Amino acid sequence: MKLPPQLTELKVRLHEINDLEMAAALLNWDQTTYMPPGGAAARGRQLATLARIAHEKQIDPALGRLLDDLRAYEDSLSPDAPDAALIRVARRDYERLSRIPAEFTAELYQHVAASYDTWSRARPANDYTAVAPFLERTLDLSRRFADFFPGYEHIADPLIDLADYGMRAATVRALFAELRQGLVPLVEQITSQPPADDRCLYQFFPEAKQRAFGAEVITALGYDWHRGRQDTTPHPFMTKFSLGDVRIAVRFDENDLTSALFSTIHEAGHAMYEQGIDAGFEGTPLASGTSSGMHESQSRLWENIVGRSRPFWEHFYPRLRATFPDQLGTTPLDTFYRAINKVERSLIRVEADEVTYNLHVILRFDLELALLEGSLAVRDLPEAWRERYRSDLGIAPPDDRNGVLQDVHWYAGLIGGAFQGYTLGNIMSAQLYDAALRAHPGIPQQIEDGEFSALRDWMREHVYRHGRALTADEILNRATGSSLDVRPYLAYLRHKYGTLYELA
Amino acid sequence: MKLPPQLTELKVRLHEINDLEMAAALLNWDQTTYMPPGGAAARGRQLATLARIAHEKQIDPALGRLLDDLRAYEDSLSPDAPDAALIRVARRDYERLSRIPAEFTAELYQHVAASYDTWSRARPANDYTAVAPFLERTLDLSRRFADFFPGYEHIADPLIDLADYGMRAATVRALFAELRQGLVPLVEQITSQPPADDRCLYQFFPEAKQRAFGAEVITALGYDWHRGRQDTTPHPFMTKFSLGDVRIAVRFDENDLTSALFSTIHEAGHAMYEQGIDAGFEGTPLASGTSSGMHESQSRLWENIVGRSRPFWEHFYPRLRATFPDQLGTTPLDTFYRAINKVERSLIRVEADEVTYNLHVILRFDLELALLEGSLAVRDLPEAWRERYRSDLGIAPPDDRNGVLQDVHWYAGLIGGAFQGYTLGNIMSAQLYDAALRAHPGIPQQIEDGEFSALRDWMREHVYRHGRALTADEILNRATGSSLDVRPYLAYLRHKYGTLYELA
Repeated sequence: MKLPPQLTELKVRLHEINDLEMAAALLNWDQTTYMPPGGAAARGRQLATLARIAHEKQIDPALGRLLDDLRAYEDSLSPDAPDAALIRVARRDYERLSRIPAEFTAELYQHVAASYDTWSRARPANDYTAVAPFLERTLDLSRRFADFFPGYEHIADPLIDLADYGMRAATVRALFAELRQGLVPLVEQITSQPPADDRCLYQFFPEAKQRAFGAEVITALGYDWHRGRQDTTPHPFMTKFSLGDVRIAVRFDENDLTSALFSTIHEAGHAMYEQGIDAGFEGTPLASGTSSGMHESQSRLWENIVGRSRPFWEHFYPRLRATFPDQLGTTPLDTFYRAINKVERSLIRVEADEVTYNLHVILRFDLELALLEGSLAVRDLPEAWRERYRSDLGIAPPDDRNGVLQDVHWYAGLIGGAFQGYTLGNIMSAQLYDAALRAHPGIPQQIEDGEFSALRDWMREHVYRHGRALTADEILNRATGSSLDVRPYLAYLRHKYGTLYELA
Repeated sequence: MKLPPQLTELKVRLHEINDLEMAAALLNWDQTTYMPPGGAAARGRQLATLARIAHEKQIDPALGRLLDDLRAYEDSLSPDAPDAALIRVARRDYERLSRIPAEFTAELYQHVAASYDTWSRARPANDYTAVAPFLERTLDLSRRFADFFPGYEHIADPLIDLADYGMRAATVRALFAELRQGLVPLVEQITSQPPADDRCLYQFFPEAKQRAFGAEVITALGYDWHRGRQDTTPHPFMTKFSLGDVRIAVRFDENDLTSALFSTIHEAGHAMYEQGIDAGFEGTPLASGTSSGMHESQSRLWENIVGRSRPFWEHFYPRLRATFPDQLGTTPLDTFYRAINKVERSLIRVEADEVTYNLHVILRFDLELALLEGSLAVRDLPEAWRERYRSDLGIAPPDDRNGVLQDVHWYAGLIGGAFQGYTLGNIMSAQLYDAALRAHPGIPQQIEDGEFSALRDWMREHVYRHGRALTADEILNRATGSSLDVRPYLAYLRHKYGTLYELA
């Protein structure tokens, strides 16, 4: 079948939308890196204008007609053909966005701004009652959002689908229950041992040296500086303005060696995913990571499976020590390796170690579902939170500031679908790493030699280059021969921490 | 008359256009400061998309109808009323832009990109023949542009009007002829004296210290860092993303003390103008300097009339010396002051001193007019250039790289109207400074005390706050009692350099 003229028009429209989105991303990046305080008010308006114009173009009925006209062409292609993927994903986006009335979006934006503002003051003030009415409304908006997609199995499904296309509450709930069942006793076992001594990490480490070392590490991993840069920001992130410009931003703490280092590796993992997308997808909706979970699989793979592994530090520890001879000169690798893998029962998700981290996520996911189902009331959320911390992690927050108020997600977006990606990512990271290892058994030795090409090239080939052309489930099945499966991840944790803590 | 509803709609539309323009300005800023090389291709497309969408909105006939509907309301107001100014300026922009066919704009953009690209390789290669055909086409496009505005007196008028609203070729030509008549003999007189010794400026001055000193200076002048910041870039500029975010960017040369310093002051002068605009104009077409000339009057006022004055350095030289004791410890203020005001016959406009600078500009303006009039052919331009340098500056470039190829303007934009603003600015700077001095005779003493509020507040009151609500001519007349007049500027130069060089 010859190329229909509508395909060209489709691409023109999609490029235009992408240009507006990328421009907005730059405005956001600047807002959190370089913008002087006086620029804030106008910047908010400018972002709203770009979002509104992009949205008008995303739901333009003419775009829908083009997609209809292209159905015959799409059907004539292999589903793997780039044009087929483009039409398929563009239609998915169009159909989703067209179901959401403009008034709803406007109402949601306004509410989210007010809710975030209230939360940003309520959190330090430990004032859950201030945010509760906003949460009620967020919950109402989340349910209304779900109802734009009738026919769902669980009310959270349309919300989960936003970040992790194709995932359903039932699937995630079952996976998470299985993972939790494995994690709770593992945490028990580990924390019954004497805690690792991590004092070596909390000395004075000048920012410039931290920055240089982090840059050396991610250069070795394969972050492409020709198509990226690193800046400083209060809350670390990765962002992208094109496949040729994928930036990371982190925060430095001069009294903590690993906070910036691991977030640099984490964000570089996200960035390498984006940098690895097929250049032919540039400017289209295919030029993006395929799901929140798949994205997190890459940040966590490089941060944890690679970056907190023994072979990795066999290579890098001598270099780190040479960078900080006064601070680490007398600390053996063993001590350092145990320090960066210290497991402890803690209250704050973003500071949690690799083993307990998913328990923080799973309980949030379960609470989201309970809220949406109506089995948990907003007023009872703080107590439910404390209960789950007690049962899963063995400690409970003394206040809401360190409890239900700690994460921004529910206060700046919808409820349902906000958290599962983190743990789905961890699960996938182990599945993908195992598959890469089967293909290239020499990977651990390469890592010990400071060489990451086999792992990186495997990820690029099986994950990165596909962008959104394949779903997370398709990528997993093709790359690992299986859908989501918690066993490799549990096996990875049991092996690593079993060795570290000499567990039975 | 009560507020018509169309006024609200007008403001909504103007804000939207402004938001798109400001977003594009940020994309441009990033492109020349932080963007990694890999981002270039997509950035070009993103800028083109933003420009196209803004342009569609600028020439939307619905905007024209609103402006028509608002004529009665406008007529009911005093011309000084903010709403009257807003409608007037919005109509001026609309009427200008609506006359330019979209195809012309597209053709021009494409041509300009190709022309710039060719020039950027032809300049280092000293290859005028490579750019000549592009210049021919630029000239053709410039004439076609002028013809969208029939009824002009001189074909350059519509082009001059773009940057310096209300100015005409005849007026500028007469002013420039008078100025040239005063400058040529002054340059003769000065350059017949022994040249100033400026070796003290060309030592090693570390960038960080240069930067800190420059920041101290512009903070004292009144640059507001809460609403701005400074970055590094190859070609210095000021840019703005709102009245609350007006940034400057300069280049540092560690072997030259004054290049970054004076360009910091220059760009801060532009920035203080924008920062001083009435906050009520935010987001509208009034929120901008009123003309290229008026803008340059402020950068040159702060850079030269203030920043290269004796009282200024009475205050700052001890500080500069304390910053660079090894380099300047034995250099007396007198020597330094003569060094920063060294006058010499030179070939490059952007490196020219205060006295010769305008001769560089005037000859370019005259050549632009001759090209447009057809009395000068593109092939004869290099020779005409050399002749004018010989007659006005007493030297001629040995090659085109240091001659007709040196400035980007003709190779990245239209011909006509590109240069006059620089010299109009110098002329105005002296008129405005004189008027401020009449109102506050203590200004020189304040400057010597490192205090700039009287001068700055006067400029804010008489120039800055008006934005585009008043034209350059209106501002000049209200603030100084006169239209453009070269005499104060000539008197300023004769007095300053007469004293410095002990001329008769």
